Amino acid sequence: MTGTYGEGSPDADEWNVAEIAAGLFAAREDWRAAYRPGPCALVRFPSRRRLELILSDLSGALFPLRLGPSSVQVDNEASYVEQALGRALAALRDQVQLEIVARCTTPESAARAEAGRIIAAFAQELPPIRRVLDTDIEAAYAGDPAARSVDEVLICYPGIQAVIPYRLANSLYRHGAPLIARVIAEIAHSQTGIDIHPGASIGGSFFIDHGNGVVIGETAIVGERVRIYQAVTLGARSFPSEKDGTLTKGVARHPIVEDDVVIYAGATILGRVTVGAGAVIGGNVWLTESVPPGSVIHQAFAERARGDVSALPRGNVVDEADSDAPRGLI
Amino acid sequence: MTGTYGEGSPDADEWNVAEIAAGLFAAREDWRAAYRPGPCALVRFPSRRRLELILSDLSGALFPLRLGPSSVQVDNEASYVEQALGRALAALRDQVQLEIVARCTTPESAARAEAGRIIAAFAQELPPIRRVLDTDIEAAYAGDPAARSVDEVLICYPGIQAVIPYRLANSLYRHGAPLIARVIAEIAHSQTGIDIHPGASIGGSFFIDHGNGVVIGETAIVGERVRIYQAVTLGARSFPSEKDGTLTKGVARHPIVEDDVVIYAGATILGRVTVGAGAVIGGNVWLTESVPPGSVIHQAFAERARGDVSALPRGNVVDEADSDAPRGLI
Amino acid sequence: MTGTYGEGSPDADEWNVAEIAAGLFAAREDWRAAYRPGPCALVRFPSRRRLELILSDLSGALFPLRLGPSSVQVDNEASYVEQALGRALAALRDQVQLEIVARCTTPESAARAEAGRIIAAFAQELPPIRRVLDTDIEAAYAGDPAARSVDEVLICYPGIQAVIPYRLANSLYRHGAPLIARVIAEIAHSQTGIDIHPGASIGGSFFIDHGNGVVIGETAIVGERVRIYQAVTLGARSFPSEKDGTLTKGVARHPIVEDDVVIYAGATILGRVTVGAGAVIGGNVWLTESVPPGSVIHQAFAERARGDVSALPRGNVVDEADSDAPRGLI
Repeated sequence: MTGTYGEGSPDADEWNVAEIAAGLFAAREDWRAAYRPGPCALVRFPSRRRLELILSDLSGALFPLRLGPSSVQVDNEASYVEQALGRALAALRDQVQLEIVARCTTPESAARAEAGRIIAAFAQELPPIRRVLDTDIEAAYAGDPAARSVDEVLICYPGIQAVIPYRLANSLYRHGAPLIARVIAEIAHSQTGIDIHPGASIGGSFFIDHGNGVVIGETAIVGERVRIYQAVTLGARSFPSEKDGTLTKGVARHPIVEDDVVIYAGATILGRVTVGAGAVIGGNVWLTESVPPGSVIHQAFAERARGDVSALPRGNVVDEADSDAPRGLI
Repeated sequence: MTGTYGEGSPDADEWNVAEIAAGLFAAREDWRAAYRPGPCALVRFPSRRRLELILSDLSGALFPLRLGPSSVQVDNEASYVEQALGRALAALRDQVQLEIVARCTTPESAARAEAGRIIAAFAQELPPIRRVLDTDIEAAYAGDPAARSVDEVLICYPGIQAVIPYRLANSLYRHGAPLIARVIAEIAHSQTGIDIHPGASIGGSFFIDHGNGVVIGETAIVGERVRIYQAVTLGARSFPSEKDGTLTKGVARHPIVEDDVVIYAGATILGRVTVGAGAVIGGNVWLTESVPPGSVIHQAFAERARGDVSALPRGNVVDEADSDAPRGLI
Repeated sequence: MTGTYGEGSPDADEWNVAEIAAGLFAAREDWRAAYRPGPCALVRFPSRRRLELILSDLSGALFPLRLGPSSVQVDNEASYVEQALGRALAALRDQVQLEIVARCTTPESAARAEAGRIIAAFAQELPPIRRVLDTDIEAAYAGDPAARSVDEVLICYPGIQAVIPYRLANSLYRHGAPLIARVIAEIAHSQTGIDIHPGASIGGSFFIDHGNGVVIGETAIVGERVRIYQAVTLGARSFPSEKDGTLTKGVARHPIVEDDVVIYAGATILGRVTVGAGAVIGGNVWLTESVPPGSVIHQAFAERARGDVSALPRGNVVDEADSDAPRGLI
């Protein structure tokens, strides 16, 4: 058998491909026998590769002169946007239809109509999504002394590369395509190291700097003008479970972060706690309780190397106004 | 010279390409003179790009309806698996042969035969690898309240996207192709931020959630039903070195994690220590000693903001049964 | 409308593409009205995808037998290098020209000449860049007991996959193409999780192991033979701002790390502090002050679980010679 790699020699007889394939088939059958997937488990499934292409077209339609192909210029911008949008929305409808059919609760014909309604609602939100993304880009430009222009932010910054897919995915999630939304979020996660669940709710002027290692959970709520740095976690503290031991799905279990909060690198905030408006959470802080608006929380740890160690507070400290708190990380 | 980018103008005479190329050649010759690579250093070398294609075909062969091309359906599934498997194994044999020749200890003809034996042994393990991957997928589905189906886990979760290549790479590593194994592991690392050395030994029902920043070292041993979260390190504490100062290769220097252990985000476990069966290691814990089965280890740190600070233990604390320990992070 | 995905059905009439495109256009116009971009804002812009191809060609030209296409062998190596170099430099000149024109301070004809000068200066530095990269590869091989050969390091290690683009980007940054430099750095960031700003200055024999989560800021200065591990941050502590509240750009605000320093995983060093030659900074240390040459800094934290806790120092401790400090992490 000749391969598509341009190599792969025909004397490959040390192994028996048919036998290995049969072994794989038997393993699959055993799994199916044990877990009894429903009749819909064998249908075609949404494709991650196809969603990567769709995401690329949607990004180009949102910001044609910066994220579109380099052939797009002012004089052909409008026709490019219509084309990219048209093919992306039609292809996305097919993917959403596959998601619905795979749930096995909707007949195929109804699934097509439902997918059409979801995409129509999603498409209506694209202009407002562009408007809120503009505020995100402005926030990144204003918040990073290394940024030279909004264009640099748009084509370079991983925070923007993650928040564009997040806002698209969140719309699909709200309109009833949570699986497609999750795949889009994981495409962005793979490219940026930033893991935002599409179920999270995030206000405008949101800036993630550097971003690698950021995790924002499914039920997190983030206000306006929030700024966070790399390796920040907005996570769950514990998972309630049912009487049979299975985890309860969908419970509000992640933090609420109010407007104008800044969270520095490596801070971990767990559970359904509230970080009050305007609070500043220092680097590496571990927080599992609510803090009032205007709080400045930092690790006592970094302070201890100086002066009279025994006189310093231990653990996380709440100060109403601490002008010496770190204001930046990069 | 016209480029393949569709641009690149012919008046590029501000620089002299031949002169720069000669400078690069001279630099290479100086390196070779200093380090005297053996006669095999100039042979062809395994190709990371080709291994990416092979990995994609193997993933498709293992899970054709979910990770194969979207053209694969129930009625052509069997023929796709045979084709993908056939070309991937043949191409992989060629890559393993390149690895063996580059070692310069085996004549080229013997290298081909040895590569064939390695691939035959690897191919035999593919069905059992599929079986253990099924347990990993089940563990992810059971362990994450945000997971809606095993299919979502399979096509989305970075932990699964890392553990599929890990189990393939580990088989190649054990059968004598450690370089190919390492390249495959680094392909997964680049896609997921999860860095599992192919020499590590990991039992079934293994679940990594989120995963970015996870590092598992070459001699780590992980039992059955272990669950770990993002940014967990199973690392080495120190490197023994030879009398001439070079590092000793291959010494057991990473942790042993027994069955049913849970390790929360950011925990760092260093050295050849043993984490006993059923232990729970809390977020951000820094651990360099063994802990007995059933231990619950957490940072005292996060507790200190509450109540009588001086009465709290300092540092990492071992409790036999602490029902208040964090049970989840996302 | 038929899509390029091979799907996309023609009955997509639940939504009106022209109307959505008009909504996107209106959003864009509102943004432009609010922010009044100059006349150059609409010019063509450098392309991230094109720079990915250029970076691939430059890597191949630097290390043809290892990072070039698998068709490159000893007998066609020289002609490959000339070809790859010729097309990459010409295409890079076009990208730099786009950067200059977009600044709107240079007429288009002068921009072409300036781009030519920048690329000529960059091209002259490629042979010395190859020489310093050789020292980086040697340092990785010497510093990691899991490394089997310099070739494995070159094709596998994310630290090398990040430092090759960094050294190219740093040259472009110094010669006057900071935007192109930043895009190249972000391509590497996306592939490796290692975020090195091209403005940082880094000496030879530099080794980053694992690397995911590393952040090195714009004004950091790193000496010779420095070794760092995953999740290390060399960041800023605060951002000076102008009277109008905007951040001051370009101030030296990141650490100076002198020769022969080792920084273990997760350490965070913030502000314009100096880490003296030969110092060792332990894992997870949080450092915002300068430390003298030869210092060994580690978290007291990890020590507290042992022996008489009250007798141990709290916080980060400076010891001139602490032979028990961790020497490795993986």
